[in-house]
Order: sequence, then C-alpha cells, then structure tokens
Amino acid sequence: MKIGIYPGSFDPVTFGHIDIIERASKMFDKLYVLVSFNNAKNAFFTPEERVEIIKEVIKPLKNVEVISSSKLTVEVAKELGATALIRGLRAVTDFEYELQMASTNRTLNGDIETIFLMTNTQYSYLSSHLVKEIFALHGNISHFVPKYVEDRLIKKVKEEKTK
Amino acid sequence: MKIGIYPGSFDPVTFGHIDIIERASKMFDKLYVLVSFNNAKNAFFTPEERVEIIKEVIKPLKNVEVISSSKLTVEVAKELGATALIRGLRAVTDFEYELQMASTNRTLNGDIETIFLMTNTQYSYLSSHLVKEIFALHGNISHFVPKYVEDRLIKKVKEEKTK
Amino acid sequence: MKIGIYPGSFDPVTFGHIDIIERASKMFDKLYVLVSFNNAKNAFFTPEERVEIIKEVIKPLKNVEVISSSKLTVEVAKELGATALIRGLRAVTDFEYELQMASTNRTLNGDIETIFLMTNTQYSYLSSHLVKEIFALHGNISHFVPKYVEDRLIKKVKEEKTK
Amino acid sequence: MKIGIYPGSFDPVTFGHIDIIERASKMFDKLYVLVSFNNAKNAFFTPEERVEIIKEVIKPLKNVEVISSSKLTVEVAKELGATALIRGLRAVTDFEYELQMASTNRTLNGDIETIFLMTNTQYSYLSSHLVKEIFALHGNISHFVPKYVEDRLIKKVKEEKTK
Amino acid sequence: MKIGIYPGSFDPVTFGHIDIIERASKMFDKLYVLVSFNNAKNAFFTPEERVEIIKEVIKPLKNVEVISSSKLTVEVAKELGATALIRGLRAVTDFEYELQMASTNRTLNGDIETIFLMTNTQYSYLSSHLVKEIFALHGNISHFVPKYVEDRLIKKVKEEKTK
Amino acid sequence: MKIGIYPGSFDPVTFGHIDIIERASKMFDKLYVLVSFNNAKNAFFTPEERVEIIKEVIKPLKNVEVISSSKLTVEVAKELGATALIRGLRAVTDFEYELQMASTNRTLNGDIETIFLMTNTQYSYLSSHLVKEIFALHGNISHFVPKYVEDRLIKKVKEEKTK
Repeated sequence: MKIGIYPGSFDPVTFGHIDIIERASKMFDKLYVLVSFNNAKNAFFTPEERVEIIKEVIKPLKNVEVISSSKLTVEVAKELGATALIRGLRAVTDFEYELQMASTNRTLNGDIETIFLMTNTQYSYLSSHLVKEIFALHGNISHFVPKYVEDRLIKKVKEEKTK
Repeated sequence: MKIGIYPGSFDPVTFGHIDIIERASKMFDKLYVLVSFNNAKNAFFTPEERVEIIKEVIKPLKNVEVISSSKLTVEVAKELGATALIRGLRAVTDFEYELQMASTNRTLNGDIETIFLMTNTQYSYLSSHLVKEIFALHGNISHFVPKYVEDRLIKKVKEEKTK
Repeated sequence: MKIGIYPGSFDPVTFGHIDIIERASKMFDKLYVLVSFNNAKNAFFTPEERVEIIKEVIKPLKNVEVISSSKLTVEVAKELGATALIRGLRAVTDFEYELQMASTNRTLNGDIETIFLMTNTQYSYLSSHLVKEIFALHGNISHFVPKYVEDRLIKKVKEEKTK
Repeated sequence: MKIGIYPGSFDPVTFGHIDIIERASKMFDKLYVLVSFNNAKNAFFTPEERVEIIKEVIKPLKNVEVISSSKLTVEVAKELGATALIRGLRAVTDFEYELQMASTNRTLNGDIETIFLMTNTQYSYLSSHLVKEIFALHGNISHFVPKYVEDRLIKKVKEEKTK
Repeated sequence: MKIGIYPGSFDPVTFGHIDIIERASKMFDKLYVLVSFNNAKNAFFTPEERVEIIKEVIKPLKNVEVISSSKLTVEVAKELGATALIRGLRAVTDFEYELQMASTNRTLNGDIETIFLMTNTQYSYLSSHLVKEIFALHGNISHFVPKYVEDRLIKKVKEEKTK
Repeated sequence: MKIGIYPGSFDPVTFGHIDIIERASKMFDKLYVLVSFNNAKNAFFTPEERVEIIKEVIKPLKNVEVISSSKLTVEVAKELGATALIRGLRAVTDFEYELQMASTNRTLNGDIETIFLMTNTQYSYLSSHLVKEIFALHGNISHFVPKYVEDRLIKKVKEEKTK
C-alpha cells in the first residue's frame, strides 16, 4: 500500500490546496493531509480548526485523512509509513523554498521522496495569505475558497470581537 | 477622460516611485497616487504624512492627485472612475508578487486593467525598505530620495525621540 | 489621440495574443499590431500571411490596424505617432527578455514608453513555438489558437508538401 | 498497477537522469523511459543508440523499460496506460519550461498527471548539452556520465570521422 | 596587501558559510568575517556569541579575523582598509537581494567592490534560518553545522530555560 | 602574484564587458581577457578580430592581456597560472547559466575559483547579441559599445558585401 502525505499550514485551505489534494488522492492508496504548525507563527485559525475545515471541504475523498502535528514533517511521515511528501508548485519564489525543503528533508530522511505537482494555472497566484488580506479588506473571496471556509472566516472574526 | 491610479505604501516615496509617477502622469488625463495602508504593518510615516510628502515632491505635475485609503485598491479605483492600476516592475521577486496582485485584482474586478511600467534600471534595486535601513545606520540616502524626504526622515526621528 | 503599438512575431497568433490585443485596444484610441520580422529567423508563415491571419481573427476590433515591418520597433512607433509599446508578460524568462527590450528601446527613444500587460493566467504557458510543436506532432491545438489559425496551419502544410 | 513514464532527449543520459530513473522506479510498478525525438533537432546519438545506452546503464532496474517515439508524450503515455509523467527539476529556467509543458500536457490530456522530482543538488547544474560541450573540448566528463556513456561518445566520434 | 571582508548575520554559522570563508581566505592576504547586526531583528545568539562561535570553527585559518559591528558594512570596510566585500550566492531569491545590496553599497562607496562566490551545490539550500527551524523541532542538524555549533545551540536553549 | 582570467565570446565587446575588465584589473596583478570560441557557433567577428578590438578599447589598462583559445577555460587558466575566473552577472537567466558553468569548472578543476562581479545596473540588460540585432536594423548602438567597435562593425559589413 502506497501512502502519501501532503503537509502545509492551510490557514485557511484554498481551492489551490483542494485541487492538489484531489489529484494526489488518486496517486496513493492513502493520503494524509498534515496541518503542520509551530507556536511562533501567528495564525488565524487554530490547528484544530484547520483540520476541521479541511475535513469538511474534502469530505467526498474517502482515502484522505486530515491530521495535525508540530513535529518535523519527515518524522510524521515515518511514523505513518508514508513514502512520499506531496507539494504543490505555483511560482518561482515557491520553487526555491520548495527545493530547499525537499533537499533538507532528503538529508534528514533519504527514504522519503518529495513529489511536486503543478498547481492548476487558474490558482497559480492564490495563497492563504492573500485570502486573509482580501478578507480583512472586506473583498470578495468566493473565487479563492469554498463557501464553508468563507463562513468560518466570518464566524471566527465575530468570535474574536466578542472576546 | 482616462483616469489611472498608482497604489503603493510609499513609506517613504523614492526616486524610483517619482520616476513612475512622472511617466504615468503623461499616459493619463488624471493620475491618482494612492497611499494604501493597513493597520497591521508597522510604518515609519503615518498615511497622512506620506500623502503630504508625495504632494510636496511631485508638485510640478498638475494632473496628479495624492490620496490615501485603507480599502481594497480595486474598490478605490472603481469609486474614482479609474480604468487602470499602474505598477512599477523592478526585479523578479517583485514580478511574482505583482502578477499575483494583478491576477487577484482582475478576479475581483475585471474592468480594471493593471499596467506595468519598467522601473528605470538606475533605480532597479531601490526600495523604501532599503532607504529606511540605510538611514537607520546613518548612511547617505541622497541618491535614493529627494532632499525633502531626507529632511522629513530626520525630523520624524527627532519627534520620536522627544516623545 | 493616444496611439499604441503591439509588436511581435505572431507566428502564429494565439489566444494569448488575442487577449492582449483586446485589452490593449480599450486603452488606446488607435492600436497597431506590428508583425515584426527579420530575415534570419526561419518562420512558418510569411509576414504577409501573419498580417492576413491576425486581421481575420480580430475583425470585430474597429480601432486596431495590423501591419508588418522589418525595421526597429521604435522607428515604426515614431513614424506612426505611437507613444506606447504594449507587451504581454507571461513568466519569468519572458520578464528578463522583456525588461531588456524595454530598457533598450528606452535608450533608443526615450519618448516611447513600454507598457506591460499580464497575460491571462489561463494562457500563461502558451507560446507560438509550443503551438507549432504540438501541431507538428499532430496534437490538438484547439485550446491554443482560433479555428481559423488551425485551418491556415493545415493549409500551409499541404501547400509545402505540394511544392 | 501504477505505470509511470519518464520522457526526455537523453542525448546522452547523465548521472542526473539515472538518479531520477532510480527514484521513479521505486514509485511505480512499471516505469517507461521514453526517448522522445523530433527530426528537426540535430542530435549526437540516434534515438536507437540512446535507447541502447540507457538500457545498458540502468540494467539492474527490473521494472524499467526503455522505448523511443516521435509522437506527443501524452499520446505515448495513453497507449502504455501510464497515469503519470515524471520530470526532474533542476533550476529556475527548467522550472518555467517544465510548468509550460505540464500545463500543456494537462490541456491535451487531463487524465495524465505530471510529477516532478527534485534533481539531487549534486547534479543540479548538469545537462546533456554541457556534457557534449565539455567532451568536444576534450574535458573530463567522468563526473557527469557513466564510463559506458563516455566510451560510446568516443566510439561515435571515431565513427563520424571515418565516414 | 589585499584585504577582504565577509559580512553576514551568522546566526549561527553553517557549513555553507565556512566553505565561503575557507575559499575567500585564499584570495586575500587578510580576511575579516564581520558579524553585522541591528537591534531590531531578533536573533538567537548575541553578536558576541556569534563571533566566539565563528572564531572556534575557523581556528585553523590564520589570516582570518572575526569582528562584529552594527554600522553600515561599507563604513566598516573603509575603516579596515578592505577593498572587497565577499558574498556567497546560493539561489535566485538570494541573487536579487544580493544584487540590491551590491548596487546599494556601490552607490554608497564606489571604491569597494562586491565579489560573489558560488556556494558549493551541496550547501545550496542551506541557511541559518533553516538550521534553527530544524533544531527547534528536534531534528538532526549535524549535516548543516559543525558539532561545536550544535553544542552551543543546545547550551543556549538550556540557559534560556533556566532564566 | 595573483592572476585572473575573464573568459567570454566578446562578439563584440560592449561597455558592460569593459566595465568588468576595468574593475577586475584592479583586483589582480595580471588579468587575462580570454576570447573563447568554438567552431560550431556562428560568430560575427573572427577570434583574431575580437582580440584586436578588445586590445584597442582597453589600451590604457597596463596589466591586462588579451588572448584567444578554443580550449576549455579551466585548461587555459591552469596553463597561465590563473587562480580565478571572473564573470559578470547581469540577470537571473545569466545567473543560472553562470552557476552551472562555475559548478562545472569547479568539478573539472577545484583549484580555480570563479568570482562574480555585478554588472553595473546601467548595463544590466546589455548583451553582444542585442548590439548585433540593433546594428542589423540600422539602430543607434553608441550607448552600448565604444565608437571603435561601431566602426569595426560597419567595416566588417562592408567587407562581407564586397566578397
């Protein structure tokens, strides 16, 4: 059984991520979507919320499981028996960072291969960061994330305000 | 009447920006320079100060108006009747970000076209961030910004100290 | 009256070019599409054929005129009274070359501004060269060029064979 | 059964290619190495010779088959029942071209996914073209290709001279 | 006597930096390694600790001296009589930033030349930032920094905890 | 005595090359400018003419010698006792190719270091190829090459015609 793992921050998950998840799910018997986080970075959603949101939007994909961890990705991969890390490639800036991570992960664990899929050109300039920026300025994000994600962003903002 | 809008942080305006403003002002009947800001980013000058400074250094350009807003650029453009956003292109890192923004803005409002002008090679590695870094280390910034901007930087630092 | 010029090889014109022509035609009172050629490069279509093909596919755009020339683009622009060269930007490799040309043209004639438009992401990896390669291998090019262009490619190949 | 296909010119195969073949062979039940060629490009080795050479240097890999074709890669993939194209990524220039090809292939056949593997950093600046250039100048190519490939290059040059 | 200066944050020094120091030390009669710092950036090691660590790991290089300063690099270079700044080049993102700095430094002081050396491909995706990230997640960093640097990282973390 | 070598095609030498030669000549006791050529590439000037032209335009630099060779650059460097290859860096496309060559040369001869200097931003988009293209279209090349080079281009064209 071939097991893959797709790590990321997913804060929040976008149509670009969902496209990669769908395509990667066809390539493996089992695909893990890994919400990786570290305490330093200030995030919009908690890791638990992000897992919850991804689970909701990829519900139809039966061989995909969503988890979260603050450990090194290669460690998580090893524990799960995954032989491949999946990463989406969008643009050149991405590319450099991605090669750095792939090279580093290979140094840390030579048994796990990093596999890159090309992000659909339609989503090639889409990022979680951008979604949050536009949302903060009350722009329309319906082309970038599913309705459910939009609702959660709105709900979260309301919660923050009533704190 | 063709109306253009040149958005940016302009914290502070540099010779690179001024070059773009001059060239863009010839392409439109009316050009707005838009100081865009969001509260999160910590800036050196307030939006009001930035508007004031740009007004001073582009005084001879009669068809240029300087404004500020915290709204989405495409929204401001729509309200002003602008049909084109102007952006300067310097280098590859720029380029990626700029295409991302142009693509996003097009998704948000298909009626507004983003127009890129090439920054004069002389200013191709110049940025507001760099100016502030060199200024902070007491370096000479006279090749990067007009004398008036330099004076305002000095004045601002004095004001901060006497607070 | 603002006059623009969009130079290129257009061998053949693609959906990417047509997208740029449509958008640029809205920005100018008059837009020239300039088929530039030099004898050295071996082309598929003659400059005359390329002009003919572009004329056909952009027929609805009333303020666009298609011409050809082997002269320096800035010279042609000057003769036509154009104040702006239009270029589409696709990707990073493009970008470098385009900045080189814009910088050179500015050195040759400072009165003519180069304006870059971002190619629609849908066409961001499309090129005339690619179209010819796929066509040569009997691939389906209907997503890349209008039906008329496809017919002309087929016709041209037949003519070549009967020579 | 998962079938992959690794297309390329392989003129000649280098240690960089061999690294990708080895790693890809672990990811699929069956891997085809496809020597693609078109008549226009002037090659050093004939497609037949290239197939022969690759066969020799990857002999230990039992699930790998080497073939050649002048057809579109996606067509060959379809005929062989392959669901994935494998490509090695070295550097940024590569990257642009590779995204172009992946995007094009996806447009031509949405059922075949392009998978990118990162070339080992050790080989990140290695190319067949470079090998031929150094060989032509009598440089030492033993760090770039297996001994067998070097011998074949020498043999080929001798054959050419005696023609 | 030719004097060179190699500025950087070195927080902490990596095998990539050490490679550049060794190679640069052969090119100059005297080489200064300059730990540059500014108060704004939050660092792991203090400038004094960084100097101490570099001194330890480059002990065998007799013509290299390690210093620290918060002044502009070109100012420090001038005071020391250095005629060249040395910088390692890794990847494209680097490249843009490095050209920006070199161009700026040249504007600030035309007598000091910036010299770029290519980072060994083996270290081409290595950075101090990456080392700290992997260390924070308890990953193995022995391929990235000397044992002594690893020990100092561990010691520093212990000190922080007991504060 | 430190000896450097600056290899290139120099077909023809431009202001960008001359800028690098001047700066490199200050860094070495002796600098060789090496006109490298291979028979395959079709050049405008013969290697002998190129040597002659460079000699003329850099006459004031007393420690510079101009030579030509069709051998591997590292071989020539070794024969001349040079310890450093000098290369100018302009833009990103350059950068990739240059790293490839530096990495290759290091594999071929670890004793010779490649040193990169940043091309003056003023010349950052200048190339010999561009000069020839503009010259062929009767454009003004006086901003790109010295008067002497322009005269030689004109003379060469006349000679070709009378053949």
